[in-house]
Amino acid sequence: MSGSPLLAELIDALRCLPGVGGKSAQRMAFHLLERERERGLKLASVMEQAMQRIGHCSQCRNFSEDPLCSLCSSSSRERQVLCVVESPTDLAAIEQATGYRGQYFVLMGRLSPLDGLGPEELGLAQLSQRLGEGEIEELIIATNPTVEGEATAHYLAQLARAGGVRPTRLAHGVPLGGELEYVDRSTLAHAFGSRQLLD
Amino acid sequence: MSGSPLLAELIDALRCLPGVGGKSAQRMAFHLLERERERGLKLASVMEQAMQRIGHCSQCRNFSEDPLCSLCSSSSRERQVLCVVESPTDLAAIEQATGYRGQYFVLMGRLSPLDGLGPEELGLAQLSQRLGEGEIEELIIATNPTVEGEATAHYLAQLARAGGVRPTRLAHGVPLGGELEYVDRSTLAHAFGSRQLLD
Ligand SMILES: [Zn+2]
Ligand SMILES: [Zn+2]
Repeated sequence: MSGSPLLAELIDALRCLPGVGGKSAQRMAFHLLERERERGLKLASVMEQAMQRIGHCSQCRNFSEDPLCSLCSSSSRERQVLCVVESPTDLAAIEQATGYRGQYFVLMGRLSPLDGLGPEELGLAQLSQRLGEGEIEELIIATNPTVEGEATAHYLAQLARAGGVRPTRLAHGVPLGGELEYVDRSTLAHAFGSRQLLD
Repeated sequence: MSGSPLLAELIDALRCLPGVGGKSAQRMAFHLLERERERGLKLASVMEQAMQRIGHCSQCRNFSEDPLCSLCSSSSRERQVLCVVESPTDLAAIEQATGYRGQYFVLMGRLSPLDGLGPEELGLAQLSQRLGEGEIEELIIATNPTVEGEATAHYLAQLARAGGVRPTRLAHGVPLGGELEYVDRSTLAHAFGSRQLLD
């Protein structure tokens, strides 16, 4: 009971954010009301736009408000190298940590039959077709070094070879069982630079 | 560089929330887009409403979207006891931890000359007038046990006596130098229950 039903509603709604419980939702609401109304209004407006307009890029499957994302439509990115990641978070980690200037493909998951995630759900027919078009020379497989990520990597390497494309995998350095998202930048940059040809 | 300018804008805007840095803002944005679009839209709409419509109650100064907040306008709250707190967070903590059923007055700060916070900024003329109207019999002073909170308590006790009102202070139990907001519920409930008459 705060005296304001609308405030109670705001505190409750903030709990949809990951890692935000009742106490921090309350702190966030009070902070916005006391000190950051303008930025709160801006956040509300951007959030509404983002929820309504952001879909997926038709080429790389990453989040995008346009049919073709800004990475895919950029003329300054190399077109002979394609890096496959599980999620937009992993893509962001590689962009921030490495000097990679090629293309991406975002699986939005990993092969996981128990969760109903097969080649179709991950867009692998689309990837396979692209690999067969002849422009791509190297497929950098940057799935996570987990059991499912490794199985996905194995599958992707086969797709690459079938399309006449050289598959590579990030070098050892990424801890086994870890998630790319939590690897420190220098380790990730090193692993990315020493990626190995899969044989 | 995420491939989506709108997504980058959302991640940046989320950083206006307290305790949210670049990495957690990114995690929040991806979480909403991947799994919680409906709740994200709802949050955006509630946040916009709250930033635009929530002001302060004309009687207790707490946050309220109406001229009189729901606590002040409730007919089931006692009218002879008034509890003064520094912030809406402290009010919420007392409501959640104790069985208090009286009125509140929210200073929205504490006496702090160096920060330009004097009796006028805290609405003390308004409080003084209310104390002089004869309805209130006890003023529970629940400012924080910090140096400035104690100085404010001293000032409030004088106001109460001048209005013929009995001033009380929360019992020992609240750790010195601590903030009400972080005290555990049972300690706060105990301290509230054993409040002492100031002499
Ligand atoms: Zn794209
Ligand atoms: Zn009120």
